[in-house]
Amino acid sequence: MSDATVASVGEHGLIERLRARAGSPPAWIPIGIGDDAAVIEPLRGELTVVTTDSLVETVHFRRDWTPLAAVGHKALAVSLSDLAAMGATPRASLLSLALPPDLPLREFDEFIDAFLALASRAGAPLVGGNLSRSPGPLVADSIALGSVHRRRVLRRDGGRPGDELYLTGTVGAAAAGLAMLSTGAKRPELQPEEAECVARYERPDARLRCGTAMGRARAAAACMDLSDGLADAVRQIAAASHTGAVIDAARVPVHPGARSWAQRTHGDALALAVSGGEDYELLFAVRPRWRGAFRAAGRLCSDVGLTHVGRLTAEPGVWLDRGGTLEPLGQGFAHF
Amino acid sequence: MSDATVASVGEHGLIERLRARAGSPPAWIPIGIGDDAAVIEPLRGELTVVTTDSLVETVHFRRDWTPLAAVGHKALAVSLSDLAAMGATPRASLLSLALPPDLPLREFDEFIDAFLALASRAGAPLVGGNLSRSPGPLVADSIALGSVHRRRVLRRDGGRPGDELYLTGTVGAAAAGLAMLSTGAKRPELQPEEAECVARYERPDARLRCGTAMGRARAAAACMDLSDGLADAVRQIAAASHTGAVIDAARVPVHPGARSWAQRTHGDALALAVSGGEDYELLFAVRPRWRGAFRAAGRLCSDVGLTHVGRLTAEPGVWLDRGGTLEPLGQGFAHF
Repeated sequence: MSDATVASVGEHGLIERLRARAGSPPAWIPIGIGDDAAVIEPLRGELTVVTTDSLVETVHFRRDWTPLAAVGHKALAVSLSDLAAMGATPRASLLSLALPPDLPLREFDEFIDAFLALASRAGAPLVGGNLSRSPGPLVADSIALGSVHRRRVLRRDGGRPGDELYLTGTVGAAAAGLAMLSTGAKRPELQPEEAECVARYERPDARLRCGTAMGRARAAAACMDLSDGLADAVRQIAAASHTGAVIDAARVPVHPGARSWAQRTHGDALALAVSGGEDYELLFAVRPRWRGAFRAAGRLCSDVGLTHVGRLTAEPGVWLDRGGTLEPLGQGFAHF
Repeated sequence: MSDATVASVGEHGLIERLRARAGSPPAWIPIGIGDDAAVIEPLRGELTVVTTDSLVETVHFRRDWTPLAAVGHKALAVSLSDLAAMGATPRASLLSLALPPDLPLREFDEFIDAFLALASRAGAPLVGGNLSRSPGPLVADSIALGSVHRRRVLRRDGGRPGDELYLTGTVGAAAAGLAMLSTGAKRPELQPEEAECVARYERPDARLRCGTAMGRARAAAACMDLSDGLADAVRQIAAASHTGAVIDAARVPVHPGARSWAQRTHGDALALAVSGGEDYELLFAVRPRWRGAFRAAGRLCSDVGLTHVGRLTAEPGVWLDRGGTLEPLGQGFAHF
């Protein structure tokens, strides 16, 4: 079996393999893998949240840098992060794969096992999907469905001038991790906090607990995830909310591994933290008078931490405040 | 603008373009394109049905054979067909595209306009998705969400020995259409019924009205769509229902264009009809005592027509009955 490829097993064989690994669906999935479509029982009185995100080989990952188990984890994490940014609780996932026919079956299994492990932890059982052959890159599209009460939805466009901007966790780690991989840094030679950057790049965590806590507390006016970086998220929330924004450079919680890597390579840790993508933290806009409720809800995700990094403004433009001097905030990760 | 490519407009530009073309979402979509995820209001008391299907360039279509407007239509039709096979009514759609950066913007627009036109006709407004760069083929993943009452779901595994098998419409057209394109047949030289085959290959119709009519009448014991051909669908329904099956060769409703093309090319029309994929008709298993209700419901989709093509059997195996001689039924379209 060690030389088997996905082509040698065939589509129906792969689906059976997937179904066996996925196990029986929970009670709220009357029909899972193996029919024309999946059937999901919505929670009474709640809204359905749905999103899709994709990882394209050589654009978002390289098989020679990153094990497929990491890609399988990340393929789902990126969609779960979108649910987190809406305040939604995961309920189901689907997976659409375009696979090079010579992909070793062992790597397919590693991908699937990592996807399923995260799906299980997040409460988003795999209920369906699609398998195709790819004449080029491996393309993994995940679809995540979630549920949220209508008064607990976190939107992108709810910000107002004067709102404070808060960030979960730290930033710059994923961009630093990618830089380490792309410059051929050997994993054993990395400092522990640098190795953490590679792990954050390869296996991001969706901030689901934080998103639902803020939605339930109705403590955030707007929210978005940092898939394309802090600068991009600030820009998007400001644009959707018809405001400007200022980020205080001194407050940006740069990951220590990104700092260490920047120092070693004579790079700019703040640039990694502001413009680097794929940290999958959450950015919240919070009315000053809701600050108490926001911080109280923040205790429910205290393992991640929340940092006050800036504010929305009436004046247009998105700025980085470096000790009183305003610079235009950098761009995020560009997909084209 | 005529030389513009998707790369020259960039991801945010393409999303804005898409959002402008999609227009305002209906009342049941509180949040559509432009947030981290879409939010959909489920119908009270109904189940949510979700599916995804993809078209991969050079595997499922070729840009030199098929205009991107046709690909845009088909990208959604293939997922709507899955909803039809569950008896579900469409409610929303998402689209994930991996695009070669040099794709002309004009072709992107044609793709999107065709997708949106079908989405609008089918009642499945585009509510979200994802855009990535592709270093290789264009990959289009559509996601369709639908709604169905819990007692009206059409499953694949509900068949029993003795059930009659019925097919909507005709088969063989899509496979013949693909054969015409792949052998370089000039469109103006085709007979009208042959040109219809090309149209059926390029712009399949999902049998939504038929699927929901049968679900509502509770007249079908099992259902599946013919994405991978009649032989594959019969095999899958029989396997899921733990039965065998026999198809009567003389009853198979071969499309007249497929017949004409097979005659001209000394091919086998029945083989096109049985093993050719992508007809997107529906196959139903019907208890003999439900036949009346089934045929009554069939009047609601009389434009398509229903043909009694065979039966499920207690004996295992899936067979083609050619005037009393049983042959193994061919395989469907293989994706790997």
